Amino acid sequence: MQAGKPILYSYFRSSCSWRVRIALALKGIDYETVPINLIKDGGQQFSKDFQALNPMKQVPTLKIDGITIHQSLAIIEYLEEMRPTPRLLPQDPKKRASVRMISDLIAGGIQPLQNLSVLKQVGEEMQLTWAQNAITCGFNALEQILQSTAGIYCVGDEVTMADLCLVPQVANAESSINKRLLVLEAFQVSHPCRQPDTPTELRA
Amino acid sequence: MQAGKPILYSYFRSSCSWRVRIALALKGIDYETVPINLIKDGGQQFSKDFQALNPMKQVPTLKIDGITIHQSLAIIEYLEEMRPTPRLLPQDPKKRASVRMISDLIAGGIQPLQNLSVLKQVGEEMQLTWAQNAITCGFNALEQILQSTAGIYCVGDEVTMADLCLVPQVANAESSINKRLLVLEAFQVSHPCRQPDTPTELRA
Repeated sequence: MQAGKPILYSYFRSSCSWRVRIALALKGIDYETVPINLIKDGGQQFSKDFQALNPMKQVPTLKIDGITIHQSLAIIEYLEEMRPTPRLLPQDPKKRASVRMISDLIAGGIQPLQNLSVLKQVGEEMQLTWAQNAITCGFNALEQILQSTAGIYCVGDEVTMADLCLVPQVANAESSINKRLLVLEAFQVSHPCRQPDTPTELRA
Repeated sequence: MQAGKPILYSYFRSSCSWRVRIALALKGIDYETVPINLIKDGGQQFSKDFQALNPMKQVPTLKIDGITIHQSLAIIEYLEEMRPTPRLLPQDPKKRASVRMISDLIAGGIQPLQNLSVLKQVGEEMQLTWAQNAITCGFNALEQILQSTAGIYCVGDEVTMADLCLVPQVANAESSINKRLLVLEAFQVSHPCRQPDTPTELRA
């Protein structure tokens, strides 16, 4: 068991890292950031040291309570169990199902198809069409699902894990739920523009 | 609130549907299958009726307890909360984190990159290389992670949600954990070869 502050391996621009940064901010968990630049030096995630830590060569990874957790939703679920306040999953199991369904739709149905490493594989010619397909198809479905789940936020009137997935995914798009969430402090302090590894010219 | 048997919209060959079928079998939940053939009739998931049910046009979808849940892991988490026996998540939060990390790695890091609709988009020429890349990269990482989590099964000595993700993903591959799981009844009755919609020539 190691003591000390949790360490988040994060890239300011990574939407999956941003999800976890919002959770840490909402729950008031003090942590250290170790920046892993996915582009610099041919991708710092490919370094021997980082690969030993996370064989998927992805951010985020969180060291906390003596363990190392990969995968943003697994990290958020762990934080929810060990640091339950404020809750990011509703008390009602049916609403929890909605939150997880929306989170999985974004984390498994949209994000993986338009992330950096996949777009690289797709090749420059097809990249834009490919990403647009994934995003359009996913968000159309999401909009329909939100019609039956949303209140002020994605599921009812409290911020949940689903919102932590939504905002990073549509960071540059327009959506009324997204706008309401972006003004909350946790979404602001965790924003890609305000991270220790954000290049000066991109700071805001 | 509707009463009656849960209804699973499923395709025998779909690895995400298989995950849920294993959970239902392990928990002894009686259910009806509505087959959605992802290939026949240009893909039955694109029918107006099914799209109204699941805007993502994907299986599985489960109707249960008066609600409709999409996304296999969200479904399994709901079943775990409402029908907790036998448990598919360990009691120890750190082990639960391992289970969710492995499940998300497979459900978000491997499956989405090699499923039918993505391979169609990639085009015939690149399909094989593409799928092999996704699978090789994902399984290499998984093998490393399993070294620190596995007992008899993926996490310790009890069957967990992680195993429900593993078996469908490596159905045709060789792995000792996979072989041990495949002899368990729940993995057999839920197998693609033994579903109501399995074509006769593929039955076993």
